[in-house]
Amino acid sequence: MSVTSTSADENVLVETENGLRDAVHTAARRARVASRELALLTRAAKDAALHAAADAILASSASILASNADDIDAAAAAGTPPSQLDRLRLTSDRIDGIAAGLRQVASLPDPVGDVVRGSTLPNGLEARQIAVPLGVVGMVYEARPNVTVDAFGLTLKSGNAALLRGSSSAARSNESLVAVLRTALVGQGLNPDAVQLLSSVDRSTVTHLIQARGLVDVAIPRGGAGLISAVVRDATVPTIETGVGNCHVYVHSAADLDMAERILLNSKTRRVSVCNAAETVLIDETIADVAVPRLVAALTDHGVTVHGSLPGLVPATESDWSDEYLSDDIALAVVAGIDGAVTHIDTYGTGHTEAIVTADLAAAREFTARVDAAAVMVNASTAFTDGEQFGFGAEIGISTQKLHARGPMGLRELTSTKWIVWGDGHVRPV
Amino acid sequence: MSVTSTSADENVLVETENGLRDAVHTAARRARVASRELALLTRAAKDAALHAAADAILASSASILASNADDIDAAAAAGTPPSQLDRLRLTSDRIDGIAAGLRQVASLPDPVGDVVRGSTLPNGLEARQIAVPLGVVGMVYEARPNVTVDAFGLTLKSGNAALLRGSSSAARSNESLVAVLRTALVGQGLNPDAVQLLSSVDRSTVTHLIQARGLVDVAIPRGGAGLISAVVRDATVPTIETGVGNCHVYVHSAADLDMAERILLNSKTRRVSVCNAAETVLIDETIADVAVPRLVAALTDHGVTVHGSLPGLVPATESDWSDEYLSDDIALAVVAGIDGAVTHIDTYGTGHTEAIVTADLAAAREFTARVDAAAVMVNASTAFTDGEQFGFGAEIGISTQKLHARGPMGLRELTSTKWIVWGDGHVRPV
Repeated sequence: MSVTSTSADENVLVETENGLRDAVHTAARRARVASRELALLTRAAKDAALHAAADAILASSASILASNADDIDAAAAAGTPPSQLDRLRLTSDRIDGIAAGLRQVASLPDPVGDVVRGSTLPNGLEARQIAVPLGVVGMVYEARPNVTVDAFGLTLKSGNAALLRGSSSAARSNESLVAVLRTALVGQGLNPDAVQLLSSVDRSTVTHLIQARGLVDVAIPRGGAGLISAVVRDATVPTIETGVGNCHVYVHSAADLDMAERILLNSKTRRVSVCNAAETVLIDETIADVAVPRLVAALTDHGVTVHGSLPGLVPATESDWSDEYLSDDIALAVVAGIDGAVTHIDTYGTGHTEAIVTADLAAAREFTARVDAAAVMVNASTAFTDGEQFGFGAEIGISTQKLHARGPMGLRELTSTKWIVWGDGHVRPV
Repeated sequence: MSVTSTSADENVLVETENGLRDAVHTAARRARVASRELALLTRAAKDAALHAAADAILASSASILASNADDIDAAAAAGTPPSQLDRLRLTSDRIDGIAAGLRQVASLPDPVGDVVRGSTLPNGLEARQIAVPLGVVGMVYEARPNVTVDAFGLTLKSGNAALLRGSSSAARSNESLVAVLRTALVGQGLNPDAVQLLSSVDRSTVTHLIQARGLVDVAIPRGGAGLISAVVRDATVPTIETGVGNCHVYVHSAADLDMAERILLNSKTRRVSVCNAAETVLIDETIADVAVPRLVAALTDHGVTVHGSLPGLVPATESDWSDEYLSDDIALAVVAGIDGAVTHIDTYGTGHTEAIVTADLAAAREFTARVDAAAVMVNASTAFTDGEQFGFGAEIGISTQKLHARGPMGLRELTSTKWIVWGDGHVRPV
């Protein structure tokens, strides 16, 4: 959009655009001020705020549900499919769950102040590397309104200020939730700008958020492949890529086929819409005669459509190998040994979770060493890649990038570090 | 550059441009292949390669010095100032130092395979988070040819393949060094593409390198503020920002002025061209009457020009507060207590190193808690922010960003992690 345009209509658009950017920047500056206060809070103060927020959400349940009903009505009128309506819907039970989630975060250790490493240097300087908050965290996410409160809880506990940009379909629910959270913060004597909701009316607020260099410390997209790649492409703020999982289950020649079937079915069908679901099964050529018919039958029995180049399967194209189905579909390929499996995964994997089923120790060790992914499972379902399962207590997303955080991200991943060095007038020799 | 252009000259340019991009991508794909091999090497194999490389550099000393002499002659003919010529120059002693640096890296522990954390989950799954190489590391750097070998040593030891883009002024020296390193790798039965030098003829190779998403895992610029901000702005590959240090020394009201003078002079004058040098001194208003004349006199006696808004100083403009001098200059401001010092640092600091001089414990604790920087020094020179000083053995740069690495980066910071989970056929309950 050119600011030198002379068309009246375009001038209005330019002003609107500048207004949106200014609004995002203003919110980010307020978040910075709040973040400096949050960074100094004790664990006790943060936990009290989390419990107060949980209490406030329960007390405001009726008004939150009313706002959510408006979102649901608008989405239904716009023809939103039932599965998406369900993701958007809040119920009394779900609100109980959201409040319980905040209390759960309160029960977790404070990641801030953790001594990452430290030593007394040869000259007597005492150097300590301490975990500190990142500062201002921008979250861009879709649909589910519970993410709003989850993100608030995790960012507050880790001493960060949250700038939230949810989806427009959940706008009324999110506004209602954030208003309750902000009031609860004020009640605790804290700066309400610890959590702010950005307008979701216009897509450009996402762009302004992820390009607010110097104002936003990190941007975390949570959602589908389209959202994540758009954020990663356009961001000038450091970003943590989350969630795209083109996960494979490799059935090795020494696999127990009962175990392989159990793990494959759980990896594929436990929940088809999540990033740790299996999207391709790789079957070793030496056992293909027996394993392929058996596993295809098991998948089909469980309502899964199998794609591939073998007779009897739905013919597969390149996208069957490269993309997530997130549905009751799976691709099947026969591969030549661990080399074949690793080459396939190197070519098509997204670095999320890869599994091998084998009774052979050397094969398991080779697979885990060679596969380049956030998580590698040996004789276990891909569904275990999850912050709760890994014992983090809570999860802000699953990183598929290699910098800063890889795999499930909990409170620790929402911190940076600071070296603090104590001396007695030390100077460095020339 | 438009590919639809019909001008013959422009077509040539477009073809050259595409050729450069293809060359960078081809090198990156070769680096990926090498990186998969490097990731599996034992420490013994990597250390043997580092010693072989050191031997080869010493044995090829004459030809390396001859190439460097050509670079020096060309730079001198182009009117390069003596201080820059000195940075570019290799000598027999410096080559000894470069080889010794490789042996030093060989003596350091292997960061790969380190168990970052791990536990047995309640269901019996054994989960371990292991340090693994990043993969393909792109380094963009200026002048000094020793960085070429330092970067090779650190990336090899951490199991990464290096794509190096040095400055054109050091092109012959770098080509000679990299040829020796590659031959040494082949002699060890290793893939020479573990280290590759990109052409420095055209600035666009930098752009192609930092935009090679999916081919390059991380880009690390090492150089002046202009290079770093250009890389961070244009990169689509994850980047670690290094080196810009607008560092402050805050002389608190309870400072011992002898100690303050010693620390300030060391921070400013030990080496003026490095990122951990002090660029501004902040003096508490309650001691300004005594401290300002004394510290200004000490600085002036040591050849430092003092800028500021007080009478007798060179008048300061906004850039005196915001930019690095990297010269025998310093800015001086009088501030109102810790609040004033922290506000000044929040406004102008680059998050590198900030120091306080004080005998007051509460003041030291407040300053270290509130200042948002990679390193905070209490009664110690800013010059201590350095990988060697911190005991890392070697340093690839000093990160001023908050993601992944903050402060001096050694071998550990050149790794990512991978979760490896061992089960017995575990599936996750629905």
